[in-house]
Amino acid sequence: MKILVIGAAGTIGSEVTQALQEQHEVVMAGKSSGDVQIDITDPNSIHAALDKIGKLDGIICAAGDVVFNTFEKISREEWDVGINSRLMGQVNLAQIALSYLNDNGSITLTSGIVADYPIAYGVSAATLNGALEHFVMAVSHELPRGIRINAVSPTVVSESLATYGDYFPGFHSMAAKDVAKSYLRSTLGIENGQTFKAFAGN
Amino acid sequence: MKILVIGAAGTIGSEVTQALQEQHEVVMAGKSSGDVQIDITDPNSIHAALDKIGKLDGIICAAGDVVFNTFEKISREEWDVGINSRLMGQVNLAQIALSYLNDNGSITLTSGIVADYPIAYGVSAATLNGALEHFVMAVSHELPRGIRINAVSPTVVSESLATYGDYFPGFHSMAAKDVAKSYLRSTLGIENGQTFKAFAGN
Ligand SMILES: NC(=O)c1ccc[n+]([C@@H]2O[C@H](COP(=O)([O-])OP(=O)(O)OC[C@H]3O[C@@H](n4cnc5c(N)ncnc54)[C@H](OP(=O)(O)O)[C@@H]3O)[C@@H](O)[C@H]2O)c1
Ligand SMILES: NC(=O)c1ccc[n+]([C@@H]2O[C@H](COP(=O)([O-])OP(=O)(O)OC[C@H]3O[C@@H](n4cnc5c(N)ncnc54)[C@H](OP(=O)(O)O)[C@@H]3O)[C@@H](O)[C@H]2O)c1
Repeated sequence: MKILVIGAAGTIGSEVTQALQEQHEVVMAGKSSGDVQIDITDPNSIHAALDKIGKLDGIICAAGDVVFNTFEKISREEWDVGINSRLMGQVNLAQIALSYLNDNGSITLTSGIVADYPIAYGVSAATLNGALEHFVMAVSHELPRGIRINAVSPTVVSESLATYGDYFPGFHSMAAKDVAKSYLRSTLGIENGQTFKAFAGN
Repeated sequence: MKILVIGAAGTIGSEVTQALQEQHEVVMAGKSSGDVQIDITDPNSIHAALDKIGKLDGIICAAGDVVFNTFEKISREEWDVGINSRLMGQVNLAQIALSYLNDNGSITLTSGIVADYPIAYGVSAATLNGALEHFVMAVSHELPRGIRINAVSPTVVSESLATYGDYFPGFHSMAAKDVAKSYLRSTLGIENGQTFKAFAGN
């Protein structure tokens, strides 16, 4: 299969890429890194990148920004970062992807554990991760030609603890290579409309 | 208690208003109807309306638009109607409301059954209702002074079957006066961060 990984140089995306490369052709994409550049916040960039790559069997997005702030202080501009990237960036990617995916292809998007378990500064992440998970569930019933869509909701990744760990006091982390399994399950399996929760324990 | 009902002239809001009026002072608001005019899509309008009304014990929003279309055809402009009304209209209302609510006051927002059960043309509604429900869950842990927040997720209301019924084939409807109970439970009870699902049966 030919599979596009967006965010392939990232902490999660690099493990997804490595795991897929054993048996599949992976096109690595990033905002500035990779074989192909793509900015998911810009529909023109999505179209241009997919035009360049041609037909695909799977598209994985391990990218999507959101701003962390308290509810008291968070501004509409900060909400819009997540609305345009985490939510509509991935929604637009899915919509545009339909023209480039082979029959029975798949789309795998990324949400996050904050959808289910609130953390300080996480109100926008919780809201938009939740939105994405409901999107995947709903839209799965509309996709043509056997195309499937799922989300992966990672807990804080062990490799990211130095950066994000303080936001997740007492949360169990998971190694990126274990989180990567959920992206393979979504891409290579038969499930549709699901959110794979790459976390365990409270 | 002094309670603001936004959408008080609507199918659901009018039953909420009637039920509350038996024991409470209700300020009725609408986009163009009511004691006070408010447009939840415009933060300045929210501020102006709440300034006029003064301190409140409860704020109920039984309003919030979203556009229905197929995933293939839905445009960003159509998504933005729901983003600015159903989601950010109610998020902004909650954020601004904190300055006007008395201690132990409450905020009650409106999502809808499409968050849980997909319908044709409902991808934006499902996504943004889901977003709102995750918002309420997450933000409930940040609210000061005993203030609570919940959502009500109505099924299709019996009085709306003539208008929306074709979108909900075989769904069980509920009379608006029964849906109204969930708004009273949120406003007068002690629960926080919940979505009251005003529907039953599949
Ligand atoms: N790490 C965690 O603990 C964790 C937990 C839960 C959820 N998540 C989510 O999982 C996703 C990946 O996380 P990560 O830690 O692996 O990220 P990361 O290490 O920061 O890597 C991000 C990758 O995404 C690419 N990217 C950034 N903005 C983009 C855009 N607008 N369009 C296309 N690609 C873009 C980057 O491109 P370049 O290579 O060109 O910079 C990079 O390859 C993010 O959405 C993150 O919020 C992460
Ligand atoms: N009816 C259903 O079956 C059903 C099912 C699930 C969810 N819902 C949701 O529940 C909410 C109420 O539904 P409904 O059927 O009772 O609505 P409705 O009968 O159409 O009434 C809507 C009310 O909201 C007010 N309104 C409209 N836009 C507004 C804005 N931008 N800012 C402030 N107020 C605004 C209107 O003001 P005016 O009085 O000035 O026109 C009216 O009072 C909506 O969000 C709807 O999507 C409804």
